[in-house]
Amino acid sequence: MYINTLSHYLPSEVIGNEYFTNLNNLSSEWIVERTGIYERRKAAQGENTSTMAIEAVKLLLEDNIPFSKNEIDLIVGGTYTPYDTIVTVAHAVQHHLALPDIPVVTISSACSSLLNAIEIVEGYFAMGKASKALVVVSDHNTAYYNESDTVSGHLWGDGASAILISKERQSDSDMQIKKLITGGAATSGKAIEAVVLRPNERGVIMPFGRDVFQNACIYMPKVSQQVLQACGLTINDLDYLIPHQANHRISLNVINTLGIPAEKLISNIQYLGNTGCAGCAIALSENRSRFVKGQNIVITVFGGGYSYGAMLITI
Amino acid sequence: MYINTLSHYLPSEVIGNEYFTNLNNLSSEWIVERTGIYERRKAAQGENTSTMAIEAVKLLLEDNIPFSKNEIDLIVGGTYTPYDTIVTVAHAVQHHLALPDIPVVTISSACSSLLNAIEIVEGYFAMGKASKALVVVSDHNTAYYNESDTVSGHLWGDGASAILISKERQSDSDMQIKKLITGGAATSGKAIEAVVLRPNERGVIMPFGRDVFQNACIYMPKVSQQVLQACGLTINDLDYLIPHQANHRISLNVINTLGIPAEKLISNIQYLGNTGCAGCAIALSENRSRFVKGQNIVITVFGGGYSYGAMLITI
Repeated sequence: MYINTLSHYLPSEVIGNEYFTNLNNLSSEWIVERTGIYERRKAAQGENTSTMAIEAVKLLLEDNIPFSKNEIDLIVGGTYTPYDTIVTVAHAVQHHLALPDIPVVTISSACSSLLNAIEIVEGYFAMGKASKALVVVSDHNTAYYNESDTVSGHLWGDGASAILISKERQSDSDMQIKKLITGGAATSGKAIEAVVLRPNERGVIMPFGRDVFQNACIYMPKVSQQVLQACGLTINDLDYLIPHQANHRISLNVINTLGIPAEKLISNIQYLGNTGCAGCAIALSENRSRFVKGQNIVITVFGGGYSYGAMLITI
Repeated sequence: MYINTLSHYLPSEVIGNEYFTNLNNLSSEWIVERTGIYERRKAAQGENTSTMAIEAVKLLLEDNIPFSKNEIDLIVGGTYTPYDTIVTVAHAVQHHLALPDIPVVTISSACSSLLNAIEIVEGYFAMGKASKALVVVSDHNTAYYNESDTVSGHLWGDGASAILISKERQSDSDMQIKKLITGGAATSGKAIEAVVLRPNERGVIMPFGRDVFQNACIYMPKVSQQVLQACGLTINDLDYLIPHQANHRISLNVINTLGIPAEKLISNIQYLGNTGCAGCAIALSENRSRFVKGQNIVITVFGGGYSYGAMLITI
């Protein structure tokens, strides 16, 4: 399958580290040293997971898409920070696009949701029930975070991305998805308590950040190797790695384990924070123009709960 | 694909209509006349979407399942009333089953989630990425409802179901899934405002119940006919219909439109209320022993947002 085009939407408000210095007495140096984050975006009043996804879709459609939007025959949404669990983000997008009678569903595997969403698209393509899918990933972390939480309040940012994916190649500029692997890892470490978002309790908290860190550093390199091997490639064939944007120290640890140089690492956490399941899609969208024909890119994710995945894209 | 076995879990506390008479001055006659509901179950303190799903899985495994639980290679959860959006219901079940490194994801298309979950399983089977799946559907409506809401407070109940589905037939008692269709209908009527659950606002509310009613009565008969036609069957070949358990008047309207007699309708709303996406699965589980070889059963769903689906099962 092929990524035809993609877009990203970021709220305009920028929250610098000084906000958390004022609020929680955390110095910018302390935050940067531990997370790599300098600033992040915060959705405005009235914005939410669904409105951000719709904005990303609008930007997508401003591009030259290789077929009419009316040919979209599947919408899969991904989020763990839902505005509405009934009128899900995918349904809000369906409404916006005025596309009746196509499968529409929203999923969560936390920060791994991007790859689970694309794997579900792969399944619809395999069944022959769809051939032109729209994936939207959107996380509105600031709707659920506690900004006064000195453990994780400063980590979170908001953002969304929209990705058009077709079963068959539509144009020369399509990016091919060569291999996609996902897995739940709820049996590992402190999976079911390390990072949680219980809407009826107290939003997103991370009581065991160290366990998340350790497992992310194990799973992302491992599954990245697996997608490369499955395609007969080695780490030397890799041009860029886009890991889940949870913490820049995790990303550095992952490339260190894989033995790839820093210039092959693509990151946006420095200026966006952890934008949840949207982070890697935003990074792919931001960097689309620098990729050159023939290059191999791996997106690898790790999510609370736990879950993991990797996807090999060839330009 | 084949349903090998299924189970259901219901919390023990029964809430009769007199509870809402005392609370909201709604007479039992008024509730029954409008909804068909006499009583519903309410999860106990400490129970939630995930614990109910795990209880359903425990009951499933007490049955003779046709293969080792260690052969399960996919878990798909469905809920619109999540206990945790990061450690999703599917991840909680993965943890309980101690089954590492298989795809795990939780989805929502509101009350349609059962059929979207099974369609995602169908996709994994088509890709060859799984062959023995566990679907869990669980809704904890009372975690999000406002019991004082005189419009919809009395409708909701809690419950869960677990379903084992294999790509190939495992035994003579398997039920075959012959055809499955799902669709989003967020373009119809007041889809994006008629029934909503915004966790950060005020839980589940139904400002336009009449619009939900009308659309449910249009979509469920239509898609039921579609799955039958796709298999070369007519309504006369149908032995039982299990519609989404939202309101008994909707169910009666649906069988009236389809022209099938009341004895072919399977309902549990009278004693369980609207148990969300678990309702039809619970009904299938409750009635498993009455089905006879060769019978055709249609499960049809309609969910807020909107979304719809139908699945033809042959015993």
